[in-house]
Amino acid sequence: MVGVKLARPEAGDIRERGDSSGLLVLAGTPIGDVADAPPRLAEQLRTAEVIAAEDTRRLRRLTQELGVEPTGRILSYFEGNEAARTPELVARLLEGAHVLLVTDAGMPSVSDPGYRLVAAAVEAGIRVTAVPGPSAVLTALALSALPVDRFCFEGFPPRKAGERARTLAALAGETRTMVFFEATHRITETLRAMAEAFGPQRPAAVCRELTKTYEEVRRGPLAELAAWSEDGVRGEITVVVAGAAPPSPQDYGVEALAGLVAAREAAGEHRKSAIAAVAAQLGVPKRTVFDAVVAARAQVGQQDEADGDGEAGDGPDGGISG
Amino acid sequence: MVGVKLARPEAGDIRERGDSSGLLVLAGTPIGDVADAPPRLAEQLRTAEVIAAEDTRRLRRLTQELGVEPTGRILSYFEGNEAARTPELVARLLEGAHVLLVTDAGMPSVSDPGYRLVAAAVEAGIRVTAVPGPSAVLTALALSALPVDRFCFEGFPPRKAGERARTLAALAGETRTMVFFEATHRITETLRAMAEAFGPQRPAAVCRELTKTYEEVRRGPLAELAAWSEDGVRGEITVVVAGAAPPSPQDYGVEALAGLVAAREAAGEHRKSAIAAVAAQLGVPKRTVFDAVVAARAQVGQQDEADGDGEAGDGPDGGISG
Repeated sequence: MVGVKLARPEAGDIRERGDSSGLLVLAGTPIGDVADAPPRLAEQLRTAEVIAAEDTRRLRRLTQELGVEPTGRILSYFEGNEAARTPELVARLLEGAHVLLVTDAGMPSVSDPGYRLVAAAVEAGIRVTAVPGPSAVLTALALSALPVDRFCFEGFPPRKAGERARTLAALAGETRTMVFFEATHRITETLRAMAEAFGPQRPAAVCRELTKTYEEVRRGPLAELAAWSEDGVRGEITVVVAGAAPPSPQDYGVEALAGLVAAREAAGEHRKSAIAAVAAQLGVPKRTVFDAVVAARAQVGQQDEADGDGEAGDGPDGGISG
Repeated sequence: MVGVKLARPEAGDIRERGDSSGLLVLAGTPIGDVADAPPRLAEQLRTAEVIAAEDTRRLRRLTQELGVEPTGRILSYFEGNEAARTPELVARLLEGAHVLLVTDAGMPSVSDPGYRLVAAAVEAGIRVTAVPGPSAVLTALALSALPVDRFCFEGFPPRKAGERARTLAALAGETRTMVFFEATHRITETLRAMAEAFGPQRPAAVCRELTKTYEEVRRGPLAELAAWSEDGVRGEITVVVAGAAPPSPQDYGVEALAGLVAAREAAGEHRKSAIAAVAAQLGVPKRTVFDAVVAARAQVGQQDEADGDGEAGDGPDGGISG
């Protein structure tokens, strides 16, 4: 178990000068408006000994716009070179360097290579901290007017039509609000594929150019959004889609209930906890799920009895409390 | 369908003066370090005609720390009064007011009442925009050293032990990295319940006091984190838990495959798309799932044949491309 405890002398100054150990700082960068950059980001850009940036030209533009002159060395760190760069950066951290990691826009680690550097640094016992900043994910969620008490982030859907259709089909029953990124030239086909997978009337919001001059949030059913997008949608796009309405428990028959339990058992869960989980998931009594498992076994026939697996006979509540 | 297009004259100044329509701005606030507040937040606090704040005392502290003198009226807006306050705020917006919504810490709408005001404002045709800021969710994810290409946010687990156990049990098969909030006095019991539901060895990270002086990120298996937390964990806590390893397709038997299809059909999906979705979800050929559905029907016996439902006979690829 790796524990990291930071003692900072004052806000804005993460590390005491003269500290001999390295420090990795993950900082969020503006998603559109440079006035969204906090003072701590400017301070980090000024003082870091190494700045690992997804795109060094975008970083230079950012430092110029912020009026900051970086004193450290600037390195590129992106999907194409992360395997080679990660050990190099960890070596600098072990030498005691203060390394800042920034991406093109938003919080590092979300849909970008940052996570591998964090994992390697933690593995090496390096202190890791963050300067939180803007995120397209949370900005889009806040503007979507959809429920956000629970949500999931899915990143970019697959580019190939078949793989995309399968990925979206697998999300058709997801009850949480979903967030996706998408490229301008694929937004219409993706919205159509979503309408196909989730139903044309599923509420959604297409957010583009968040915090920029032409910020636009378009809310409506997926089919309407797909039709609207045919005229072209410019800029960086975040799509928020309402989750599926949870089905009513009465909609589930014996086969479905027993099958959900069997699927969890296949995934390595014990039957008792699988029954409890399915009951919790669907909001039905454990007894109902247990009875379905027993009924399904009876239907399948006697051959299973010979397996000597009497677990289901323990009853739904045996050993399960709460 | 409601579309919102913003044209802003310059960065930092969201609305042209003299604009007759109302504007709702959602702004993120620091989660610990006031130096994480961007210039746009200060500008909003200075210029908004109405500030709706989750906790007006915390807001006053924030404006003092930022050296900002709000000119607008400050109203409380929290779970207890949102039902009454929402129409009042929408009325002000319809009169043309510039309303700023802030919560105690982090981005509005995430695990707080903001979403209802956004939904009501959008319904009333009001422009809604956001000033993105810090978020404990994304900061904790970035520091967790866990994969964050896909994640889900679950908010606070239920307080009652039984309900909490059921909620966590329903998440045992979740393959995305999960983020939870938890209170200091419940963290040990929650980590224990997580170890019970997800397994003692499931990797996780407990983050407390993010961006504050005593920021600490503790990473390790759930059982170890639960034991460590017994000494007491102070401050605001965000827990990040690795998702479940996806089971291998061979682990699924006929009953499980057919049951997953039946569960999707119960939720209103057509059989063909349910078969495609289950195949996509598990990464197995559609044929395998289709065969399982046919085999399960055969096992159940002849009585189902009499129902005259010949859909499964169409084959797994009939009408489904990609």
